[in-house]
Amino acid sequence: MTHTIVSSATRQIVIGDDRPFVIIGERINPTGRSLLAEEMKAGDFSRVERDVIAQVEAGAHMLDVNAGIPLTDEPAILARTIQLVQSLTDVPLSIDSSIVEALEAGLAVYRGRALVNSVTGEEERLERVLPLVKKYDAAVVAISNDETGISEDPDVRFAVAKRIVERAADHGIKPEDIVVDPLLMPIGALPTAGRQVFRILGRLRDELSVNSTCGASNVSFGLPNREGINGAYLAMAMASGLTSAITNPIAEGVRQAVMAGDVLMGNDRDAARWIRTFRTAPPAGEQGRRINRRRTASAAQA
Amino acid sequence: MTHTIVSSATRQIVIGDDRPFVIIGERINPTGRSLLAEEMKAGDFSRVERDVIAQVEAGAHMLDVNAGIPLTDEPAILARTIQLVQSLTDVPLSIDSSIVEALEAGLAVYRGRALVNSVTGEEERLERVLPLVKKYDAAVVAISNDETGISEDPDVRFAVAKRIVERAADHGIKPEDIVVDPLLMPIGALPTAGRQVFRILGRLRDELSVNSTCGASNVSFGLPNREGINGAYLAMAMASGLTSAITNPIAEGVRQAVMAGDVLMGNDRDAARWIRTFRTAPPAGEQGRRINRRRTASAAQA
Repeated sequence: MTHTIVSSATRQIVIGDDRPFVIIGERINPTGRSLLAEEMKAGDFSRVERDVIAQVEAGAHMLDVNAGIPLTDEPAILARTIQLVQSLTDVPLSIDSSIVEALEAGLAVYRGRALVNSVTGEEERLERVLPLVKKYDAAVVAISNDETGISEDPDVRFAVAKRIVERAADHGIKPEDIVVDPLLMPIGALPTAGRQVFRILGRLRDELSVNSTCGASNVSFGLPNREGINGAYLAMAMASGLTSAITNPIAEGVRQAVMAGDVLMGNDRDAARWIRTFRTAPPAGEQGRRINRRRTASAAQA
Repeated sequence: MTHTIVSSATRQIVIGDDRPFVIIGERINPTGRSLLAEEMKAGDFSRVERDVIAQVEAGAHMLDVNAGIPLTDEPAILARTIQLVQSLTDVPLSIDSSIVEALEAGLAVYRGRALVNSVTGEEERLERVLPLVKKYDAAVVAISNDETGISEDPDVRFAVAKRIVERAADHGIKPEDIVVDPLLMPIGALPTAGRQVFRILGRLRDELSVNSTCGASNVSFGLPNREGINGAYLAMAMASGLTSAITNPIAEGVRQAVMAGDVLMGNDRDAARWIRTFRTAPPAGEQGRRINRRRTASAAQA
């Protein structure tokens, strides 16, 4: 079994096929959230604080932190945001930026072993990000595209992932420290998007023996009842080999699908968490959530 | 693509990896339903009638019909039930019995091309059921166990399925007329039950190129919120290759998971059914169901 280990100063998380699925909260990201972007730019981090608390309460095992706001000093804002988030929670973080200087600024202040999000198969990116990952002894998300773009052939995307793993080895980075993102497109625009990813995930697990992650909310872009699509996608991807996802832990449909996926993959031992959550509670809805939380709390105290 | 074709006198259904998932309604089965068993034994088929209507209204593409009541003339009751069901609906039927004489009595009265449920890898069963399947030009469910029982090794269960396909060929039955049931155990009792089935399903699709089915409700036996487990299981099994299931179409969680699975497998063209069902409706619950039904009806009239 391949285990990817990330940590904060005081808590360790293991990503692996024999472990409960790791949910990486996606909310601390100003992309497409103009209000959050404006606030962060103006130095108001109150919404970030609320998003940290809400996602961790909802069961996120890690949080992704992105500070990509145009026309700002992204390295400085990302470093500040990471310090703030680490002062509020001990879940490990994914440091998310397309700007290498921002990744480095984030790594410099991070306490623990971070997940760097991300490197691609592009030559310049490989040569700049991999030394950083090595220098800070981090793990890294490897996105399966390169200079030629994103192939619709899953075997080409697999080959890109394989090449990143090989290049990382040249830098002294082990395969278990690479978490491959097979790149999920919106299913409404590309009907083969699901099958492509399920095939890549199977090959990543069976042939390359690496962990995987995925920006999972993207799949339902443009469709109604997105939570229904996202939850089913996550369960299907788990069966295909996906071991973590960057997604919204607050969505009940997503949380329940992942919990059921853990049961069905044999990673919720004796279905203990499922039984504890649902044994007297209604299956979904606000009342269900409230009762579940109380039950979980009292079970933890017992 | 392998297509299994079944029909009633007036309607044809195609099971295949490039087609919407086929839901075979499980409700007309007195096993574990003592009230239904008593009524059927006494000649009262009113509950059967209601179960036919409710399942077809809920979207079942086929119905499984079982009349296995101890100490009764099962062949006669099964034949009568099939005639009744065919008088009420035009969806094709799965004729379900462990008694070969009952299968034959059902086939003798059936109008169309039935699915015979089932043959196993047991020698006596093979030699008695396969000639019937050939004689009536039916399709058949092949269950992957034999005299040695049900192996926990998925590759052994795959080998049993392969042997049934080969034996069927000796009787002049084509692989496309065989729908393999990989045998799903309760996940609460056997934590590897899900992974076993996902692996068999992948090999059935990729190596044997046959369709598959599954008694899907069994997986959640003994657990709370069974619908949550059943829905996630079906989505996961679809990603692994499952093309039909004997399950409860009336359960909203099951129906929604299968609909989302169709979208994600690229088998709901342009996500048209998903969009039609959910574009203005809430994601779940009684109100959602009522609105959806009205929308579907008005869309069909348009």
